[in-house]
Amino acid sequence: MFGCLVAGRLVQAAPQQVAEDKFVFDLPDYENINHVVVFMLGTIPFPDGMGGSVYFCYPDQNGMAVWQLLGFVTNEKPSAIFKISGLKSGKGSQHPFGAMNLPQTPTVAQIGISVELLENLAQQTPVASAAVSSVDSFTEFTQKMLDNFYNFASSFAVTQAQMTPNPSEAFIPANVVLKW
Amino acid sequence: MFGCLVAGRLVQAAPQQVAEDKFVFDLPDYENINHVVVFMLGTIPFPDGMGGSVYFCYPDQNGMAVWQLLGFVTNEKPSAIFKISGLKSGKGSQHPFGAMNLPQTPTVAQIGISVELLENLAQQTPVASAAVSSVDSFTEFTQKMLDNFYNFASSFAVTQAQMTPNPSEAFIPANVVLKW
Repeated sequence: MFGCLVAGRLVQAAPQQVAEDKFVFDLPDYENINHVVVFMLGTIPFPDGMGGSVYFCYPDQNGMAVWQLLGFVTNEKPSAIFKISGLKSGKGSQHPFGAMNLPQTPTVAQIGISVELLENLAQQTPVASAAVSSVDSFTEFTQKMLDNFYNFASSFAVTQAQMTPNPSEAFIPANVVLKW
Repeated sequence: MFGCLVAGRLVQAAPQQVAEDKFVFDLPDYENINHVVVFMLGTIPFPDGMGGSVYFCYPDQNGMAVWQLLGFVTNEKPSAIFKISGLKSGKGSQHPFGAMNLPQTPTVAQIGISVELLENLAQQTPVASAAVSSVDSFTEFTQKMLDNFYNFASSFAVTQAQMTPNPSEAFIPANVVLKW
């Protein structure tokens, strides 16, 4: 029903089914993974009114499983790309794999997919840093950040006439900031 | 041999084989596509010493096909994620699909995969904006950019004692830049 692809590696199309409604892919050497693609194979759709929540699970320093909600796949949006390289310092979230007791190996993480009611999915909030769509506007974001910076820095700008005497304080000409 | 997945849509695993060594996936409604995943299905590897160059093809304003090299898949790196949402204003590049005369429809783009010698692939340069790996180190990139900016701006820093008289020039206290 599901496939999983780590960017740069071979696709996996045979998850371990750990419960009737729960599927798990192993991600060996997960420290070297940036992006993971989770998708429906197109063979079996979700039952009406249901979809899948997608979790990333990795072992913390004590070997305990930490679960983080990455996002969702549904019949209407049957695939998604997630960025997991920034998640390792994040906190765990509530998850439906509690009783699974998946064996944790230091270098192996998991992708878990839980089939649930769509109305339940709508109440869950994925970790923001997993959304690849957030990097779509990379250039715009950078430009906006720089604009913000110039506006911020300019609000502190003074001319020499306005300066209070303090010969040791360093100043940067405002046009240097603007040109940069 | 190949699969293709548009983020958010169903996977495609049956490309059109337009020549013995060339495969094409259609991408309907390509204006609404951000990321495309191209991967080997894992059933048939490339012959020894060969790999695939991956092209994005879209119709320009006159309905002519514009081809851009996105990157490569090989037996060692059998999948890749490409960002195509920023490519529509780019120039076309040399490509091996010249004689194909793929029919162009205004809203349909293509992913083309050409099986070639690895030594030929090594001489080709993909369009930089297609590489999703370039956003992997987003935070690090931003931090580095800001560090560079502070170093750059600081090189212009002066104290009041060093200023040449020019009461109208605006200055920004250096600690404002550093704190930001």
